[in-house]
Amino acid sequence: MNQDPTLLLTEQLISLPSNTPHDAGCQDIMIERLERLGFAIERMRFGDVDNFWARLGTESPVVCFAGHTDVVPTGPLDQWHSDPFMPTIKEGMLFGRGAADMKASLAAFVTAIESFLAEHKRPVGSIALLITSDEEGPSINGTVKVVETLAARGETIDCCVVGEPTSSERFGDVIKNGRRGSLSGRLIVKGIQGHIAYPHLAKNPIHLLAPALAELAATEWDHGNEYFPPTTWQVSNIHAGTGANNVIPGKCELLFNFRFSTENTEQSLKEKVRAILDQHQLDYHIEWTLSGNPFLTARGPLVQALAASIESICGFQPELSTTGGTSDGRFIAQICPQVVEFGPINATIHKLNECVAVDDLPKLSAVYHGVLERMLT
Amino acid sequence: MNQDPTLLLTEQLISLPSNTPHDAGCQDIMIERLERLGFAIERMRFGDVDNFWARLGTESPVVCFAGHTDVVPTGPLDQWHSDPFMPTIKEGMLFGRGAADMKASLAAFVTAIESFLAEHKRPVGSIALLITSDEEGPSINGTVKVVETLAARGETIDCCVVGEPTSSERFGDVIKNGRRGSLSGRLIVKGIQGHIAYPHLAKNPIHLLAPALAELAATEWDHGNEYFPPTTWQVSNIHAGTGANNVIPGKCELLFNFRFSTENTEQSLKEKVRAILDQHQLDYHIEWTLSGNPFLTARGPLVQALAASIESICGFQPELSTTGGTSDGRFIAQICPQVVEFGPINATIHKLNECVAVDDLPKLSAVYHGVLERMLT
Repeated sequence: MNQDPTLLLTEQLISLPSNTPHDAGCQDIMIERLERLGFAIERMRFGDVDNFWARLGTESPVVCFAGHTDVVPTGPLDQWHSDPFMPTIKEGMLFGRGAADMKASLAAFVTAIESFLAEHKRPVGSIALLITSDEEGPSINGTVKVVETLAARGETIDCCVVGEPTSSERFGDVIKNGRRGSLSGRLIVKGIQGHIAYPHLAKNPIHLLAPALAELAATEWDHGNEYFPPTTWQVSNIHAGTGANNVIPGKCELLFNFRFSTENTEQSLKEKVRAILDQHQLDYHIEWTLSGNPFLTARGPLVQALAASIESICGFQPELSTTGGTSDGRFIAQICPQVVEFGPINATIHKLNECVAVDDLPKLSAVYHGVLERMLT
Repeated sequence: MNQDPTLLLTEQLISLPSNTPHDAGCQDIMIERLERLGFAIERMRFGDVDNFWARLGTESPVVCFAGHTDVVPTGPLDQWHSDPFMPTIKEGMLFGRGAADMKASLAAFVTAIESFLAEHKRPVGSIALLITSDEEGPSINGTVKVVETLAARGETIDCCVVGEPTSSERFGDVIKNGRRGSLSGRLIVKGIQGHIAYPHLAKNPIHLLAPALAELAATEWDHGNEYFPPTTWQVSNIHAGTGANNVIPGKCELLFNFRFSTENTEQSLKEKVRAILDQHQLDYHIEWTLSGNPFLTARGPLVQALAASIESICGFQPELSTTGGTSDGRFIAQICPQVVEFGPINATIHKLNECVAVDDLPKLSAVYHGVLERMLT
């Protein structure tokens, strides 16, 4: 019985307990297969994180597959139907931590490249892989550092497919061609503490903040665009007062978050917030944290190649989407004009009994293979 | 050397550690002196609180002195210059917990009545005392219960002087002829919790509350009147969110407090708050707590008698005021049309090293004596 090579490699990777940020040997297995194909391998360990950059060829365009070997914690083991690091097939599904996020994609990268190179000895351009074990963790010593290293020596990527599980209802239905940015702020509005019976001797920061907060909550930051929904601003926390009900507090703290489209930038949003707070004459301080800039890959060669490959395998056109959280795509976009994300169905990721459909594994490999066909021949 | 009888009695009362709600024998001393004058004494113990009602005479008008024997906690003993329950005179000041709030007034009540009765064997009307040991505590088993008892049997008071320390900068400068009301609320605004990246699936209660909060903070509840400053509304606490910065919270909690004039009522304020919240279509719940209704004694016989008595002793007219916290006056006002408060300088009350000027003690007794003169002869 001939087993599907993508299934076999996926099972091999699942059996290694690569709890973030540990790689647990996954990258060794991939590297061994890629070296056999003639790839030049550059291991890049930063801190406690294993990463590698692999490249075959020196010509342009450079088509890159990007992904991560680390997985999120399993959660309570007694609620898994099978050992999360013991790949188990049941009713057509392959179970295991990382099955969908994203060991199936890693396996499909390798098998797609193998089958593509078996057919095309001399691709027109280069094939590369950018693999990290720090995507599910703090994302400090992973993709961002590899990209910095490549940028420092002027190495660029022309197209990148990130293997994130983007399919939603059925395999192939969604491509992510961008992600919103995420910008957080911790706002402290200062007042003057005092007794509640003598408000003229105090300055109530809650009262001072209220009209500015109302204006911020009502602001339309942009209208989005063809690819992005409108930018949103949401308060996650507001705190003032010590519990005593006869004291006007001295300060009020607010935590907020923007999810923003490419119609705004980190800078434009900061300026707009400050303008509203200044207009209300508040005495305030903000600490900003940028979790990720938005990135967007408009319809063009890579989106078309990926969409056509999916359609040829699945029989329908995928939908373009920019929703959801952040991904490593935001880092790669800094040195690569075209970044898209595509992978298996994401219904079980980060959950108990994570799984991927066995039948989707050869399809996933074929989709990636189809991208190489369309970009490098 | 003939010591001032008010000083002697004040010292006697200070030496009894009547930490609220304990009377520690203070009332026994007062009762003994009053019985000697022919007063009918009615002890009224409610729960763990000692109170008494004393009356001399059966005729109208009934002029009552009201006060409390309990004191607030001492605070750190090592920061007192002398034992707080060991009356100590230093540089013209008598130190001890309760010296100003309000054992000097209790002593002055007794000595004023003694000196008045020594001159006037047959007052035109009655003299009464309403004394509690639960003013600094929860105020549940004190004056409010005595007033209920008197009201139940139809006994009324025509005029009442509460011995609270009302003097501010110099002895005799301020009479309180009323107090603002205090009404508190705990507001819960309900939303729908959700992930901050998908606000269209959630309802952010902070955003929903913001415009209503701005309106409440900007509202002019009334303009006050001749006796009262305008009603104030202040938020003491606002809390929403669990700390996680990627979650839209499901509810927002707000604690607020009204200090209100006689231009509003508990009911009118509740209705105004609800109208604003309803207009903003909030899903909310409020728990209300009325700490005290406002009371007011306009210029009239008692205010005039007290002011004239102060002027004859101090050489200047006192100012009328209704500011500050609540007092037991609010309860007495329910069975007494004229309630005023007057006592020594309040600069050290509830603080370390509480004290009263030794020279002010005979003056205080003389002021109370002067009220009896003007009301009962």
